[in-house]
Amino acid sequence: MRELVDRIRVEGRHVGGGIVKLDSFLNHQVDPELTRRIGEEFQRRFEEAGVSAVTRVVTAEASGIAVALSTAMAFGAKLIFARKSQSRVMTGTYFVAEAISRTRGIRSDLMIDRRFLTEADQILIVDDFLATGSTLLALCQLVAESGATLAGIGCVVEKPQEEGRAVLREFSAPVITLAKVEFENEELTVYE
Amino acid sequence: MRELVDRIRVEGRHVGGGIVKLDSFLNHQVDPELTRRIGEEFQRRFEEAGVSAVTRVVTAEASGIAVALSTAMAFGAKLIFARKSQSRVMTGTYFVAEAISRTRGIRSDLMIDRRFLTEADQILIVDDFLATGSTLLALCQLVAESGATLAGIGCVVEKPQEEGRAVLREFSAPVITLAKVEFENEELTVYE
Repeated sequence: MRELVDRIRVEGRHVGGGIVKLDSFLNHQVDPELTRRIGEEFQRRFEEAGVSAVTRVVTAEASGIAVALSTAMAFGAKLIFARKSQSRVMTGTYFVAEAISRTRGIRSDLMIDRRFLTEADQILIVDDFLATGSTLLALCQLVAESGATLAGIGCVVEKPQEEGRAVLREFSAPVITLAKVEFENEELTVYE
Repeated sequence: MRELVDRIRVEGRHVGGGIVKLDSFLNHQVDPELTRRIGEEFQRRFEEAGVSAVTRVVTAEASGIAVALSTAMAFGAKLIFARKSQSRVMTGTYFVAEAISRTRGIRSDLMIDRRFLTEADQILIVDDFLATGSTLLALCQLVAESGATLAGIGCVVEKPQEEGRAVLREFSAPVITLAKVEFENEELTVYE
């Protein structure tokens, strides 16, 4: 997605250790118009790949919520964001899978209420980054456990050097990313 | 907002201790079309209250992000979601304020990067619930510290019995909520 590549080139920063900071428009401050166009682009690209009848878009709190919402809007689907920690509001029964956060250095459980995923669902998983694939793998496991069909996986930015795409291969779903970022020392290379 | 009141009456559940569960459309599973209309309703209601030139909508991760994004879309403003815990991506300098989560029973710091709030900004704070007001108070303190103008506070659901509105009075900004929920034993009363 040309607009996104240009934006990362101008505003993205490699802050060391392979961590790319896009907090001015993607995951702290958010540009709603770009977010809307990202959702429309996912809808267009997945339709090209034969994925159109999506019933639910699934993401993990918190960074994925904005792009997952705009994607759900574009598909006319519902959004579910998996919760990361138990709260007093969570009184039901849940699908649970463990993810390891690269940027926070901690393990956490991702949880989705069993009422919201059924065997009739066509699920699109959407997140901001495809890096090591740990969070996405946990989301794929939640979907598999529910018996729903995993129709595709969409991430805004891919870091091919961290090889998350290989981790997701077993799920046989199309993986679409809108920009790729590689780094060598302080240098970022960004492409579609 | 009539549609929201009706939805809470059908799907809302009081799970004890004053905790109202709206996870089928608001803060776990999310209805994108309702979320879009909530954003448009906030824009209309705040404009009636004399608030129109909003530059940034501020919320806290994670439950507020969806409604804050749709509100930012309706205003043509940017969205900022305050982060709750430090990650390796957070390398800048931050405005910080402490909030106590009612539903999680923990204290946490809310953080916003100093680059994204300036004295020229007109800020609308948006969140899912106005209960005790602890999270909103922390967001107001972040905005005050930045020197930006707090133009208003919008919450989807208010629980008047928890008196959060009184906590926010010192900031002299209009507080608009779209539905009110009261409870006595297991009985919920919902009104505009």
